[in-house]
Amino acid sequence: MDVFEDPESTREEILAAAYRTLCEHGYADLTMERIGEEFDKSVSLVYHHYDGKDDLLLACLEFMLENYRADTDAGPPADPREAMETVCDRPSLVDAPAEAQQFVRALVELRGQAPHNEAYRDYFTRSDRFFEAQIATIIKTGVEQGVFRAVDPERTARMIHTVLSGAFFRYATSVDDAWLADIREELRAYNERTLYLQDGDEEP
Amino acid sequence: MDVFEDPESTREEILAAAYRTLCEHGYADLTMERIGEEFDKSVSLVYHHYDGKDDLLLACLEFMLENYRADTDAGPPADPREAMETVCDRPSLVDAPAEAQQFVRALVELRGQAPHNEAYRDYFTRSDRFFEAQIATIIKTGVEQGVFRAVDPERTARMIHTVLSGAFFRYATSVDDAWLADIREELRAYNERTLYLQDGDEEP
Repeated sequence: MDVFEDPESTREEILAAAYRTLCEHGYADLTMERIGEEFDKSVSLVYHHYDGKDDLLLACLEFMLENYRADTDAGPPADPREAMETVCDRPSLVDAPAEAQQFVRALVELRGQAPHNEAYRDYFTRSDRFFEAQIATIIKTGVEQGVFRAVDPERTARMIHTVLSGAFFRYATSVDDAWLADIREELRAYNERTLYLQDGDEEP
Repeated sequence: MDVFEDPESTREEILAAAYRTLCEHGYADLTMERIGEEFDKSVSLVYHHYDGKDDLLLACLEFMLENYRADTDAGPPADPREAMETVCDRPSLVDAPAEAQQFVRALVELRGQAPHNEAYRDYFTRSDRFFEAQIATIIKTGVEQGVFRAVDPERTARMIHTVLSGAFFRYATSVDDAWLADIREELRAYNERTLYLQDGDEEP
């Protein structure tokens, strides 16, 4: 993940080490010691900054989300249809580099902590809200530009985010992935039928 | 869960105890000792039958899936539209008894083990295939009866199962659930637009 390429502080170096260790070992086998080994400096420095592995992993997730938010906070998209297709292409992750795939698996493991861990629950609630709002902005813009149908932006965004969440959840926790291509096709068909105004449509 | 109401053997009694303990404590705090406490007889009997908590929980999941399979194995549905609405109403679980909600949370925790545990991965792959096939059978029947559009049954079933998986995943791991009503509405709209033939439609 580019966001960890140039750590600007000891804190960021630790977060980068946590990210790399998480991708390599997954959540279950993750320890502060392993993160310390990945980190160039002393493991005691890791303990100095973070109370334990969950505290550190949550800080890592938070840092990634904030960076992603800053990167994509360019206001309404110029081309809503293109922006929507980029969002709906996320399940193509199956063709992504191994590290990205490992991260998705680790993310699902982390989210699997949420039923019994309030801090994870809060984090994932906030990240869901962020991604839904991002999709809703694309939809609102498309409706305003007259290229999308007059759908309910929130409700449609929730549907799309739930499909993507389900796809990542299944991808990380099952053996086959042939179904992923079907999901991408069906999401594309959903957008064509539900969202995109076609030539000759009667809506304004 | 009705399936555990009348255990017919020691093995089933142990599975019932595992189910109740899982719902009450979740996966993270589950131990063989706790299951032994819930079980009326000796905890050593639990160890006699199962190698450890994951072995026991997988047997429990398997038992539930087999029972569900036997219960619903009545062949093609008489009323495909009604059957589809029953499937798509699963996210109404939010109004279900506390135990059912706890079970969904525990199930997501168990599935969160799958990225690093092959036995869980295999189980959830099989359960996905079962639920997808069940939905595909409903769709095929609807198409044959001339009440559904001529969609690709597999692809549509995969979409619906992925939405439901995503909804359960999010429900178990986030704080709010207002979005769930939107998902049910949008699934209903998806079926109306994509699946159900309306009066006056031109398809055969």
